[in-house]
Amino acid sequence: MDLKRMGNQTVVFANPPVILSSYSVVGPKEGQGPLGKTFSKVWKDQLNGEKSWEFAESKMLREALEGAIAQVNVPSGHIDFMLAGDLLNQMISSNFAARQLALPFIGIYGACSTMALGMALGSMLIDGGFARYVLVGVSSHHDTAERQFRAPTEHGTQRAMSAQWTVTGAGSVLLGQTGVGPRITSATLGRVVDYAESNVNNMGSAMAPAVADTILNHLHDLHRHPADYDLIASGDLGAVGLALAGEVLKQSGRDMGTGFTDCGVMIFDANQDVHAGASGCGCSAVVFAGNIMQRIKAGELKRVLLVGSGALHSSTSALQGESIPGIGHAVVIEA
Amino acid sequence: MDLKRMGNQTVVFANPPVILSSYSVVGPKEGQGPLGKTFSKVWKDQLNGEKSWEFAESKMLREALEGAIAQVNVPSGHIDFMLAGDLLNQMISSNFAARQLALPFIGIYGACSTMALGMALGSMLIDGGFARYVLVGVSSHHDTAERQFRAPTEHGTQRAMSAQWTVTGAGSVLLGQTGVGPRITSATLGRVVDYAESNVNNMGSAMAPAVADTILNHLHDLHRHPADYDLIASGDLGAVGLALAGEVLKQSGRDMGTGFTDCGVMIFDANQDVHAGASGCGCSAVVFAGNIMQRIKAGELKRVLLVGSGALHSSTSALQGESIPGIGHAVVIEA
Repeated sequence: MDLKRMGNQTVVFANPPVILSSYSVVGPKEGQGPLGKTFSKVWKDQLNGEKSWEFAESKMLREALEGAIAQVNVPSGHIDFMLAGDLLNQMISSNFAARQLALPFIGIYGACSTMALGMALGSMLIDGGFARYVLVGVSSHHDTAERQFRAPTEHGTQRAMSAQWTVTGAGSVLLGQTGVGPRITSATLGRVVDYAESNVNNMGSAMAPAVADTILNHLHDLHRHPADYDLIASGDLGAVGLALAGEVLKQSGRDMGTGFTDCGVMIFDANQDVHAGASGCGCSAVVFAGNIMQRIKAGELKRVLLVGSGALHSSTSALQGESIPGIGHAVVIEA
Repeated sequence: MDLKRMGNQTVVFANPPVILSSYSVVGPKEGQGPLGKTFSKVWKDQLNGEKSWEFAESKMLREALEGAIAQVNVPSGHIDFMLAGDLLNQMISSNFAARQLALPFIGIYGACSTMALGMALGSMLIDGGFARYVLVGVSSHHDTAERQFRAPTEHGTQRAMSAQWTVTGAGSVLLGQTGVGPRITSATLGRVVDYAESNVNNMGSAMAPAVADTILNHLHDLHRHPADYDLIASGDLGAVGLALAGEVLKQSGRDMGTGFTDCGVMIFDANQDVHAGASGCGCSAVVFAGNIMQRIKAGELKRVLLVGSGALHSSTSALQGESIPGIGHAVVIEA
């Protein structure tokens, strides 16, 4: 059997899976941002009738997953796997969403890189011959994340200028073996990289070296250059992390040019008071499912590299003095 | 392309991946149990020189992963993926172990079913043509789990008779495309099943319906009977859950006979004061990597069905009044 790999970390699909549909659900603040009109649905408040933020996050993920399914005429029983993950302890948003959908469920965790990880893994399951359709979705919620990782938002704690604003949003894609739509042609799965950043209010810096590592390996493995992509978008480095990743890449001989940006920079305006930008699993998921998918379909973008970025720490590891390891998972989407 | 599936939930491998090696590391209590001599390494205490139980758990997982690698002569750079997961918030044991190993890392979460999930997923990545070798490992630690999910062990809280004892243990397998060893021939990925059990001191009952659902689907998909297996072992149902799963299966027309047992029942003796048995990601991982692998290699077991069992809740979901959804992932191992 031929190995579907190039270089050290990149898999190349023999029959690239198709992104048949995508769906995004966001909170009011994301709806007011510059990408507001690109989202499938904007909630009026953070709870949407649920009794807790955690219940709301799981509902939001379910809406995103069901939204992606509703756009495609899938024969009953042909969605062979659901892949999902989120930031909450033991991934309850995903588990409870999976309970409703009752599909064979594979829980995945790459912190905020989970959407790209799911797209990569889902593509391998389809191209490997194990699935006809795979549903991938992730979520994050500003208030559940703040309460769990930092402080309850009711406290009104002052935020550092390097801090990022966790996106309230859930995004999903439905992948298929055949059909019409952009295709996932290759993926580069990342290694854990840790440059000893330990400031939990500066996640962008913690993740930047891992994103740079994955981009360098990706370009090396496929013998490509940054200019071979119309857009290279990291998941949620924010302004601080994006600048740092660009600097690391430049020092490694890769000038990224103007086509390198970050979903966490794109989703909010400077006047929305989010400081260094956005973060969260939902960030890259809703920007990809909305803005980027629309630009691919409109013919503006022919080849995109989406590099999910994840900070693999917990409150416990931070309190015990550990640094924050990062990871970057990349997928190539072509029109 | 032929679809490598049978029925609704089962994948069947065209070139079944080989379990080239397995390794298990456990704590002192597990070492004193009836399977004590089957483990690769027994720690003398719960910390093994680390400054916290969380650091110790991650070290234990690293030892298990490195132990599996050390037994096989793998060409440098040919371990294409590491799949790992654990019970701690944001899976820090796995993330920090992955930092040391520096392999392309896929984080997976199926609570205590994670070992079977990893073996299933790793097999798909190899049989799909995306990897030559895949390293799979999981861990749990009695004291980190008690502190996170229930109460710090220093409190000496009285435990319910239906409660299970989280195994301090890490298990791993190294899967390969070719080589000598037992093979993973098929896998049934589970759906989330919830019968509204909400007692966090009775996880076996919460997981039993999901395990039964997966076994029923597995047998149906492959047109098999319980007697087609020398051993069917659930992951960590414990005595209460195992009896309940047997009852559900019997009422569904499947009498499991004497070949149906549970890793959480096997690992401790009645006189070890663990009440309903053992639990934790590490439970099925170390029982499989030790006892079951040895019995397969000795020719005693020709065909085994390992059904990882996971309870997909969190402390937060329990406090907010949610029930405990369960999941079961099954893999078939043949001599």
